[in-house]
Amino acid sequence: MVNLKGKDIISLRELKKDEIEYLLSRAADFEKILQKEGYTNILEGKILATLFYEPSTRTRLSFVTAMHRLGGNVIGFSGPEGTSAVKGENLSDTIRTIDNYADVIAIRHPEEGSAKLAAQLSTRPIINCGDGSHAHPTQTLLDLYTIRKEKGKINGQKVALVGDLKYGRTAHTLAYALALFGADMIFVSPESLSMPKDVTTELKDKFEIEIKEYTKLENIVKDADVLYITRIQKERFPDPGEYEKVKGAYKIDLNVLENAKKDLIVLHPLPRVYEIDPELDNTKFAKYFKQAYYGIPVRMAILASVLGK
Amino acid sequence: MVNLKGKDIISLRELKKDEIEYLLSRAADFEKILQKEGYTNILEGKILATLFYEPSTRTRLSFVTAMHRLGGNVIGFSGPEGTSAVKGENLSDTIRTIDNYADVIAIRHPEEGSAKLAAQLSTRPIINCGDGSHAHPTQTLLDLYTIRKEKGKINGQKVALVGDLKYGRTAHTLAYALALFGADMIFVSPESLSMPKDVTTELKDKFEIEIKEYTKLENIVKDADVLYITRIQKERFPDPGEYEKVKGAYKIDLNVLENAKKDLIVLHPLPRVYEIDPELDNTKFAKYFKQAYYGIPVRMAILASVLGK
Amino acid sequence: MVNLKGKDIISLRELKKDEIEYLLSRAADFEKILQKEGYTNILEGKILATLFYEPSTRTRLSFVTAMHRLGGNVIGFSGPEGTSAVKGENLSDTIRTIDNYADVIAIRHPEEGSAKLAAQLSTRPIINCGDGSHAHPTQTLLDLYTIRKEKGKINGQKVALVGDLKYGRTAHTLAYALALFGADMIFVSPESLSMPKDVTTELKDKFEIEIKEYTKLENIVKDADVLYITRIQKERFPDPGEYEKVKGAYKIDLNVLENAKKDLIVLHPLPRVYEIDPELDNTKFAKYFKQAYYGIPVRMAILASVLGK
Repeated sequence: MVNLKGKDIISLRELKKDEIEYLLSRAADFEKILQKEGYTNILEGKILATLFYEPSTRTRLSFVTAMHRLGGNVIGFSGPEGTSAVKGENLSDTIRTIDNYADVIAIRHPEEGSAKLAAQLSTRPIINCGDGSHAHPTQTLLDLYTIRKEKGKINGQKVALVGDLKYGRTAHTLAYALALFGADMIFVSPESLSMPKDVTTELKDKFEIEIKEYTKLENIVKDADVLYITRIQKERFPDPGEYEKVKGAYKIDLNVLENAKKDLIVLHPLPRVYEIDPELDNTKFAKYFKQAYYGIPVRMAILASVLGK
Repeated sequence: MVNLKGKDIISLRELKKDEIEYLLSRAADFEKILQKEGYTNILEGKILATLFYEPSTRTRLSFVTAMHRLGGNVIGFSGPEGTSAVKGENLSDTIRTIDNYADVIAIRHPEEGSAKLAAQLSTRPIINCGDGSHAHPTQTLLDLYTIRKEKGKINGQKVALVGDLKYGRTAHTLAYALALFGADMIFVSPESLSMPKDVTTELKDKFEIEIKEYTKLENIVKDADVLYITRIQKERFPDPGEYEKVKGAYKIDLNVLENAKKDLIVLHPLPRVYEIDPELDNTKFAKYFKQAYYGIPVRMAILASVLGK
Repeated sequence: MVNLKGKDIISLRELKKDEIEYLLSRAADFEKILQKEGYTNILEGKILATLFYEPSTRTRLSFVTAMHRLGGNVIGFSGPEGTSAVKGENLSDTIRTIDNYADVIAIRHPEEGSAKLAAQLSTRPIINCGDGSHAHPTQTLLDLYTIRKEKGKINGQKVALVGDLKYGRTAHTLAYALALFGADMIFVSPESLSMPKDVTTELKDKFEIEIKEYTKLENIVKDADVLYITRIQKERFPDPGEYEKVKGAYKIDLNVLENAKKDLIVLHPLPRVYEIDPELDNTKFAKYFKQAYYGIPVRMAILASVLGK
């Protein structure tokens, strides 16, 4: 029997497969509630703190939305400017303080390990919403949910991960999660941004799945069931020159998808900058806004579960 | 039978007279609820998104207040800093995302046409809270409500519109709305900021009302029933030099109102800078803070109506 | 019979002793509710406005938390950037506007006297959350609550106030409040930042308590029941050079507390910068995060009381 009450959600790898299954299944239940009544009151009187030290639209607002749809309230901030951080307060003291106010804490902070630190200091469940380039587990959970919902199952799907597979460590986690659920994978990246060898080796050793690697998108479009594009994140690059060389490397438009399967779906964690041509938005390929929608039931499932409801 | 469920409120001119009447009448009902119980729960479980890309005190906070007084919740931001806009996300993608989170969206954005664009992309009702110098329909609605409440009726009132009548396009809309409800008008502006000819001509042709134009305030004070002053908006001027010449053109103080009718009311959308001397604040002329109050029942009426409650 | 309905909380000195007693006693009731049910709904439909013109983590978020735990809603801002202040609106006009939206207003503003001004303009209860270096009465109330809860009573406790006792005017108020409740006091500060003579004289004349003054912390640690450290607030210093000389004057670590009483408690309003070594955090001396927690029931008591519930 899975019980996530009080659990910190710091990285996807700390969740067992049956725990992930449980969250995806609860998300499906909440999606039904969203479509029927629109909300429930199971978290009435509860408070979520959203401590966002870095900008966010989807992650912050979908957590706030999820909490409201569950009948709960929200405190927090969307940047450090209006807080005691400007008077020199460190993260630890802010966490120990908020621990006294909220029942659950969602945090985004630029430093790797910040969410883990928060979990060590806090008696409340901590949900990592991004700690630098390290982990963003609720994004991966909604990615899994999206593929299952849109394709029926994850097992056996050919998922192409496209973009920066070196610095974009959330891509490493997504690859792991997809492997865990039996998806085959195609990695597409510029030579200089390819998936690290140890990640690929681990996946091949641990799971019975197929992994192929390419540098050109053209070669793989016709085989893919899912095309998962990631933004080349300027802010994560140690060298701006390297960024400039690769930023426009892959751009999905109708031309690129000419030979794609009819039921191919294109995903993107958003925000996109150049990666997907807006001409795709109104085609049946485009599922990236639907993907953002799925963030609500998935985050409702996380909040309700860690609060033991 | 008027039904505004699902309707976008982009500009006042897109509302029919009976739709405006309906909103004003519902606002009166909500004002009674505010005075008696203070709130209702008819929007329980509903979410309003307030996407404010430009500063606001009254419009944003009165929408948030209205939503809370209706039992609903609010998500959003009061500036683009903490959002994905800083990572290069455009308005369209933000709208398509928020469309998945909220039941109704109130937006202020500096670009003209932004609210219309949002309405085209979103399946939710969009409420325009200012798109550049273009339109601000909920302000006009509360202006109408204020005059009706404070003077008993709009028809036949002599309303003086004072200030920048050229760039202040909300003044064009207000003039149209007042004409639609049968008010006579006096336009008072510096020569260089007078009401555009086509606006005046249209109003005279379409409605059986009287319109006079002046450059000096002194000439008209004794005749007016309503004095509606607008801020000369520095941020809307193409030429800063032109702004400097006219910014202090009209200032209302007790001296100016010496020969005014006893029941004259002075209105202002606020914020004011120099336009009204604070010595007026405690006189019976001053209705500009009452006007801000009326924003609550009017915005409650809008939210409840577009959400079909 | 104490009745605080409609009362402004501008400074602690304007509260009578039985009013303070009443608030502390209600806070104890709310603490029980927090521990049992977690929340109540006695302020359902009510709105708190938090107008914070200066940064804050604890004060703002604990007021928001308190309002939510009472079933009420919150509007407001955490800095002037997204408001009409950037268009030149003054505090008075903002207050007169918000007066129309909210049922109670909590304000932090850099100018001394700003909260008093707000109280004069507003028909709603105003709660001063800091007006420059002047007053911060809800902090003092939670300080009193903390000492009573952690030590059983305030009367007869030896409380050492350590740090900037000259510019830190909240220290003056705390000293007054502690004297009112019969605590003995030890003032510890650098020569140049000592408690003003008139404060010390007034306390000695008015109350039958003991007051001693020191410049070295070492001399008093073994006698104290409560060690109350304050941050040397850079932003309140007229002369930056003076700040640099004294900023590190007192730092509490385990070494300093070697000869302390076993049941000594260390308090700090937070944020701390250098004043308390983190090695203290997990000792039984450390009560500064518990102190932040007590802000919730105390602010619940204030909100419920001024709203007449």
